[in-house]
Amino acid sequence: MAVKIVETAEFDLKKPTLIEGLPGLGLVGMIAATYLVDKLKMEQVGYIVSDKFPPIAAIHDNIPLHPARIYKSKKYNVVVLLSEFIIPLNVVYPLSSAILDWAISKKVGRIISLGGIVIHGEQDEVYGIASTPELVKELNGHGIKTIKEGATTGVNGVLLADCASRDFPAISLLAEAKENYMDPKGAALVIEALKRIMKLDIDTTDLVKESAVLEKRMTDVMDKAKAASKHYKAAEETNPMYG
Amino acid sequence: MAVKIVETAEFDLKKPTLIEGLPGLGLVGMIAATYLVDKLKMEQVGYIVSDKFPPIAAIHDNIPLHPARIYKSKKYNVVVLLSEFIIPLNVVYPLSSAILDWAISKKVGRIISLGGIVIHGEQDEVYGIASTPELVKELNGHGIKTIKEGATTGVNGVLLADCASRDFPAISLLAEAKENYMDPKGAALVIEALKRIMKLDIDTTDLVKESAVLEKRMTDVMDKAKAASKHYKAAEETNPMYG
Amino acid sequence: MAVKIVETAEFDLKKPTLIEGLPGLGLVGMIAATYLVDKLKMEQVGYIVSDKFPPIAAIHDNIPLHPARIYKSKKYNVVVLLSEFIIPLNVVYPLSSAILDWAISKKVGRIISLGGIVIHGEQDEVYGIASTPELVKELNGHGIKTIKEGATTGVNGVLLADCASRDFPAISLLAEAKENYMDPKGAALVIEALKRIMKLDIDTTDLVKESAVLEKRMTDVMDKAKAASKHYKAAEETNPMYG
Amino acid sequence: MAVKIVETAEFDLKKPTLIEGLPGLGLVGMIAATYLVDKLKMEQVGYIVSDKFPPIAAIHDNIPLHPARIYKSKKYNVVVLLSEFIIPLNVVYPLSSAILDWAISKKVGRIISLGGIVIHGEQDEVYGIASTPELVKELNGHGIKTIKEGATTGVNGVLLADCASRDFPAISLLAEAKENYMDPKGAALVIEALKRIMKLDIDTTDLVKESAVLEKRMTDVMDKAKAASKHYKAAEETNPMYG
Amino acid sequence: MAVKIVETAEFDLKKPTLIEGLPGLGLVGMIAATYLVDKLKMEQVGYIVSDKFPPIAAIHDNIPLHPARIYKSKKYNVVVLLSEFIIPLNVVYPLSSAILDWAISKKVGRIISLGGIVIHGEQDEVYGIASTPELVKELNGHGIKTIKEGATTGVNGVLLADCASRDFPAISLLAEAKENYMDPKGAALVIEALKRIMKLDIDTTDLVKESAVLEKRMTDVMDKAKAASKHYKAAEETNPMYG
Repeated sequence: MAVKIVETAEFDLKKPTLIEGLPGLGLVGMIAATYLVDKLKMEQVGYIVSDKFPPIAAIHDNIPLHPARIYKSKKYNVVVLLSEFIIPLNVVYPLSSAILDWAISKKVGRIISLGGIVIHGEQDEVYGIASTPELVKELNGHGIKTIKEGATTGVNGVLLADCASRDFPAISLLAEAKENYMDPKGAALVIEALKRIMKLDIDTTDLVKESAVLEKRMTDVMDKAKAASKHYKAAEETNPMYG
Repeated sequence: MAVKIVETAEFDLKKPTLIEGLPGLGLVGMIAATYLVDKLKMEQVGYIVSDKFPPIAAIHDNIPLHPARIYKSKKYNVVVLLSEFIIPLNVVYPLSSAILDWAISKKVGRIISLGGIVIHGEQDEVYGIASTPELVKELNGHGIKTIKEGATTGVNGVLLADCASRDFPAISLLAEAKENYMDPKGAALVIEALKRIMKLDIDTTDLVKESAVLEKRMTDVMDKAKAASKHYKAAEETNPMYG
Repeated sequence: MAVKIVETAEFDLKKPTLIEGLPGLGLVGMIAATYLVDKLKMEQVGYIVSDKFPPIAAIHDNIPLHPARIYKSKKYNVVVLLSEFIIPLNVVYPLSSAILDWAISKKVGRIISLGGIVIHGEQDEVYGIASTPELVKELNGHGIKTIKEGATTGVNGVLLADCASRDFPAISLLAEAKENYMDPKGAALVIEALKRIMKLDIDTTDLVKESAVLEKRMTDVMDKAKAASKHYKAAEETNPMYG
Repeated sequence: MAVKIVETAEFDLKKPTLIEGLPGLGLVGMIAATYLVDKLKMEQVGYIVSDKFPPIAAIHDNIPLHPARIYKSKKYNVVVLLSEFIIPLNVVYPLSSAILDWAISKKVGRIISLGGIVIHGEQDEVYGIASTPELVKELNGHGIKTIKEGATTGVNGVLLADCASRDFPAISLLAEAKENYMDPKGAALVIEALKRIMKLDIDTTDLVKESAVLEKRMTDVMDKAKAASKHYKAAEETNPMYG
Repeated sequence: MAVKIVETAEFDLKKPTLIEGLPGLGLVGMIAATYLVDKLKMEQVGYIVSDKFPPIAAIHDNIPLHPARIYKSKKYNVVVLLSEFIIPLNVVYPLSSAILDWAISKKVGRIISLGGIVIHGEQDEVYGIASTPELVKELNGHGIKTIKEGATTGVNGVLLADCASRDFPAISLLAEAKENYMDPKGAALVIEALKRIMKLDIDTTDLVKESAVLEKRMTDVMDKAKAASKHYKAAEETNPMYG
């Protein structure tokens, strides 16, 4: 089992938009996706497992959850795929394939990935990349600058190249973000860009206001995970059974 | 063979509770499970093997035993799964799956994992996590605080997330425990919490009283294992055949 | 999936020449192949994927692309296979086999690999290696010195030995080039040598003139890739989920 | 091929005892097994191969031999399995399974493993472990102390636990021995203990007397192996083909 | 594909002798085998590939060649198998099996491996090992001392043990040789010993006379391979695509 997508509820959407929010620069994708799930009151429809993922369960609202999950909103015809841990390098290819295959099997209309990009000057810009010339025009029409020359890495990058090769409509939105820590402003920027492309009844002023609460909750999860993980390793080293 | 559960005796229980005690913080789970097996005079019904496990046989009462074993008590309608070594990281996923698949095939009623958690203030609390909202209420009803936000790792964590996804009733009881050595007080705490949830005729005052004997026996096993393991490695290095 | 060649457009050529330009000394092969694709206005017909390749998408002219791609020119009856990243050592054998198998299945007439070789004296020479004695004569007839004794490594080397064993016509052209950075002069030299062997309407004076632009564009891609890659690794290390 | 047992002669014994002598503490098992093979004039009936074994051939009496071999004595209804190199850790599980499966398929009556254990006080004791309570009694009846609590590692340990689980009669005899070098006295002790359990016409006073010759012969093999192995590694590092 | 022997010409020999010359101490086997191929004007009939081999093509007489090759001489009814690189440790077992299986399928009469051994006193001796007592006598009859007790490693060693187990006639000839560099005198010694065993019209005085030329040619190959390999690794490290 490299990567397996497990569905736990009925998938009754027609050509929905699949929004993908994986942690990356400033954890922008993950924060934005989590915020969408909360504010749009989305319902979990599945999760993703892999023996290459860290062996963690997140606990939210008293319930243990797989840290990579899929949610739906029938009202907005939207699916959100998020992960609470950084995708290990050796899972990037199988996960990208698994996501695209699943999206095609579910007749997803388009994929929009959310992420961060290094800041140039002020932190006020969101850049786009698209898998087809039509989508590039669409992005430009919404006032979103597209990246003409460059490179993009990770699940987003490989997925975009796959989509471009298969003529599958896919967009990547990258907000300028601060490295190495949680950047709710980047997440707000990327959601605002998303709202130019599709209808979503969501207020990002909350995101920045609530960022202290959000950060506490996320840091809480991460710290517990870190401590547990640390203990795990220490125990492996000191337990005499391991000699 | 990643992980294989081998049955060595008839499994004639109906919807039993499966108690899982793997070593973790303070070795709480392992100590508590071993104590249950002894005091409830349970009978071995199987063992678990994996080529990723350390190549050790424990010797108890003159008999060599696989260090990961399964016991039953018909009287209490209980099954105990324990391991005398820390589960290596690369076995966490396959072992979690193997345990849940086996539990379902055996029509286990619920799974209760025992473990340790870092102490906050006094060492007097046992925290719970549960796979369904009903079980959260049940735990709270027994006066056991549940973890609302956080994360949990290892076999317990992955197993809990799997159970939550499949709506399988599972509970994790985590006693405050001291890191890096054997903590019989944590084991006593977790058994007391277990007794609030299910009927078990067992006195934990023995556990703390007998802790010197217990520690000697366990240390004895662990020291021999450590020495043998050390010798094994030294021999590999000094034996000229290995050049 | 070690290596997979995916075709995305019709392959309607008869016994075309397959030109292979992978990065090596001075990045000569990659620069020369890219220049050919641009100046001969070639059309993409496929790409190569492997889970051993770095997880990157190149972005050229607004479109995300797999970094190892195949192009055709019906006018010149030529196919170009290029990669924008160095082939990892553990993909050399499977990639070489995949290229030759694919070339044979597509009834390719001959394979010509472009690359660099360490400079002896002035940077003015292109050396050839060929898979058959007839091709050695042909190269010598065009005034191209062939390597009589020595060794050659990487995809080019393994592919040449495979072709020699199967009597498949293959040539390697190696321009003297500077190590460790982009050498457009080497790329110009190797294209000039190529023009002695086959008809190509292409002016390499452009290559050296445009080298500043070319370098900027390529450096741009590489720098972005490098930064992203760096961030990726840093995130893996600092993200608390990784403990 | 993890582990393969290859038979090279007819196996015409009925319920024989299988004696296993692998090198361990003091190389006791290997020395004792070699001595048995010599003195009882046993005949080779097979050998064991694995791509995880060191690539060595032993040369004895002018004949190259696989370093893990199986011998039989029809007269004593005994089979001896020995190895002249320490079993690598990652072969312990597959080798243990292979030995037990083969023993069962050959209708072996019981398995007796010979090995060493750290000295307590004088070097005069042999300890036993057995897979069934009846065998424990038998050992005690012969005046051999059994280990009541502890642990045992390696092929012997895993094999014993497997035998105990399957109710297959198996005994481990562990002589007090000196670490880190050849201990013929330990080997003599373990053979004397073996003679209490089964009839064997063998004099161990020879073993200690001949220990100088034995040591020379064994050291000779090991030194040559070590030198060759060293050269092998040095050549890998200095040979320019490896760059 | 661990190891594959590919035939490229008809194999029309009856019970030929297979001479194996792999690099080892003093590169004796490789030098001797190369000298035989040249002087006996042998014809290539195949090559050996493995994804564990270094990705190199040797270039001899303008032709790129796989570095592990097989040659035949109909006149002398002889097959030579040689490699221009040291066999990596993890290919020793599969290569030994592949050679013996191939030899049996081709109805090879006997296998003679050529190699080097550490010098004792003067460099004037060639030692033999044989797979059967008859061959030991034959060697002794030719005045070649056989190794009575010891060990031998690598492809030669494993192959000899396999041959002894299967009663396949095999000989190993080991000339005293200097470590860590090319030793043509050792190669001459081993060919002289070979000539005592089988009829070969070959003068080894040439070998020592031509040793300067030979060394230049071989060093040339090796240096180019080394430089290319070095560049390969440096490029991997400095190429920004690798970040």
